Amino acid sequence: MASFHPLVASRVHLSPLLPTPAAAAAASFHRRRFSAIVAAATAPTTTEFDFKTYMGERAVAVNRALDAAVPAGEPPAALHDAMRYALLAGGKRVRPALCLAACSVAGGREAWAMPPAAAVEMVHTMSLVHDDLPCMDDDDLRRGKPTCHVVYGEPIAVLAGDALLSLAFKHMADVDSYPADVDTDKHAARVVRAIGELARCIGSEGLVAGQVVDLEMTGSTETVPLDRLEYIHLHKTAALLEASVVIGAIIGGGSDEQIERLRKYARSIGLLFQVVDDILDVTKSSEELGKTAGKDLASDKTTYPKLLGLEKSREFAEKLLCDAKEQLADFDKEKAAPLLYLANYIAYRQN
Amino acid sequence: MASFHPLVASRVHLSPLLPTPAAAAAASFHRRRFSAIVAAATAPTTTEFDFKTYMGERAVAVNRALDAAVPAGEPPAALHDAMRYALLAGGKRVRPALCLAACSVAGGREAWAMPPAAAVEMVHTMSLVHDDLPCMDDDDLRRGKPTCHVVYGEPIAVLAGDALLSLAFKHMADVDSYPADVDTDKHAARVVRAIGELARCIGSEGLVAGQVVDLEMTGSTETVPLDRLEYIHLHKTAALLEASVVIGAIIGGGSDEQIERLRKYARSIGLLFQVVDDILDVTKSSEELGKTAGKDLASDKTTYPKLLGLEKSREFAEKLLCDAKEQLADFDKEKAAPLLYLANYIAYRQN
Repeated sequence: MASFHPLVASRVHLSPLLPTPAAAAAASFHRRRFSAIVAAATAPTTTEFDFKTYMGERAVAVNRALDAAVPAGEPPAALHDAMRYALLAGGKRVRPALCLAACSVAGGREAWAMPPAAAVEMVHTMSLVHDDLPCMDDDDLRRGKPTCHVVYGEPIAVLAGDALLSLAFKHMADVDSYPADVDTDKHAARVVRAIGELARCIGSEGLVAGQVVDLEMTGSTETVPLDRLEYIHLHKTAALLEASVVIGAIIGGGSDEQIERLRKYARSIGLLFQVVDDILDVTKSSEELGKTAGKDLASDKTTYPKLLGLEKSREFAEKLLCDAKEQLADFDKEKAAPLLYLANYIAYRQN
Repeated sequence: MASFHPLVASRVHLSPLLPTPAAAAAASFHRRRFSAIVAAATAPTTTEFDFKTYMGERAVAVNRALDAAVPAGEPPAALHDAMRYALLAGGKRVRPALCLAACSVAGGREAWAMPPAAAVEMVHTMSLVHDDLPCMDDDDLRRGKPTCHVVYGEPIAVLAGDALLSLAFKHMADVDSYPADVDTDKHAARVVRAIGELARCIGSEGLVAGQVVDLEMTGSTETVPLDRLEYIHLHKTAALLEASVVIGAIIGGGSDEQIERLRKYARSIGLLFQVVDDILDVTKSSEELGKTAGKDLASDKTTYPKLLGLEKSREFAEKLLCDAKEQLADFDKEKAAPLLYLANYIAYRQN
């Protein structure tokens, strides 16, 4: 069996995600820096893991579930159209993939986690729709397209967000959403626990809290201290990534100890996700990002690059990636491969 | 045992809720009209039921649960303050009372249903906060106080609504919210089913759908047909009242047949609630209602009085009250008393 270096596979399979020469150069720079860490980290030693195919297949399956969950053309048509517009606008489906992968690594069948995987994407979409509103971040562009309120108006955008949020819970609670081979005796208790995790990550302990503190900081003249910045990101970004992983692990039947290790993994990649987002905002164009670039800079928003500088921000990202991978060490290597690659992907993504 | 007429008790115990002579006259008019129906309907034949004390005690318990569910002063303070402002602004707690009463009539202990009872009030509050927004109904007054966005601003009002919605599910899913004597083997499955009911009544099959169609109709020059008006009310108002009752019945361990009978009861009182609301809007002052009166008329909104006239609207209310009471006939009379009185209360309330 050939010795395997995950970043070789990353380079091979992620290459279509790195289209511009500048991006490729940046990625190569990252790879060199990261290589020492990654060599020491857990890596699948069996067949080469095809991350691009893995993500592509999951995105197709998740999109199918999302498409089926929101009926096209049914009344009220404007509401369903707006929900579908926001939900099916593309996106890499990172959160659902994390949920599915965590279910598998915790010992479950991946299909068991499809309903919660769709649910976390609904919650993510809802938070984007509401955060983009004129009274919030006032963003006109999202995933390269006009935002929901630009197309459907503010009232429908608010209501589509509300409907997506409740649909997430409806979808998770619907027994008919799950395959027949779930462990019937334990399934309901797992679903209740998973719903609790999802609900917790949205409100005043999660997404919403992060957005509130973010809004308070925006336009403020004082420099935001690092711990406040971390609070925002842990709530606004990491909380839902954490919930995605933890929910998958719960539905997969993971032990409490496994669930907590995966929670730590998720917290690290959650913060990593935002640090990389901040870096991308100052290093990429709007076209490359599919959303307004340089917005943080223009609005004088505190970001990791602003607070730490670009170099130290990249070092922090390295540390977070390393921390995340450490948590995967004791899991089955083959089953943990998707989570390892997802961590790499979040670190090296270009948009 | 003395023969018992529920409206005699209503007159005694509801009297403090009917403060003005005009209101008393109207109520007396209603009572005469309703008496034939009520005489034929199920009524408790044991001791007189003290509805006012019943509602007062439940409101105190529900307010305590709501107060505990949203920590005062914890960061982010603005968010928690806004949630508490909207949630603890008074209100009659009709939905929680329905939930608790349905749990009891279905055979459970009322305390089992306290977490979902608090949850339905959170959802109700969230829908009020979002519906009041400037981009929606643009209402400045609610329960006699400035609306949430007037006090805390639009962004916090949107986010407080989102946080209340997710808190409802968190609260229902949290096993620690429930008393220790719930039927452990069946509890998780009941909670999952109840969460599904709650989620369904919010989104594109419930509150949100009703609000979307309501917004579409507002300002439209065409006359709204009766079936469209009923669609709005069944979704905007009846759906959550239905969920409140059904969730209570599920948590109480009711049979499928009992749950469906209670669902029918709830649909009737749900529509009744809105018909009475429409009637009150044209017959009461802002001061009496604690919200802007005559708003429907001023905005040329289609209402039952506009479509059917006041007299026919009252007849329709009578029919709905009668339908609701019929569904209670086969339940234990003493346990069903609160639901019977709640139906009367919804029919005869003055604000």
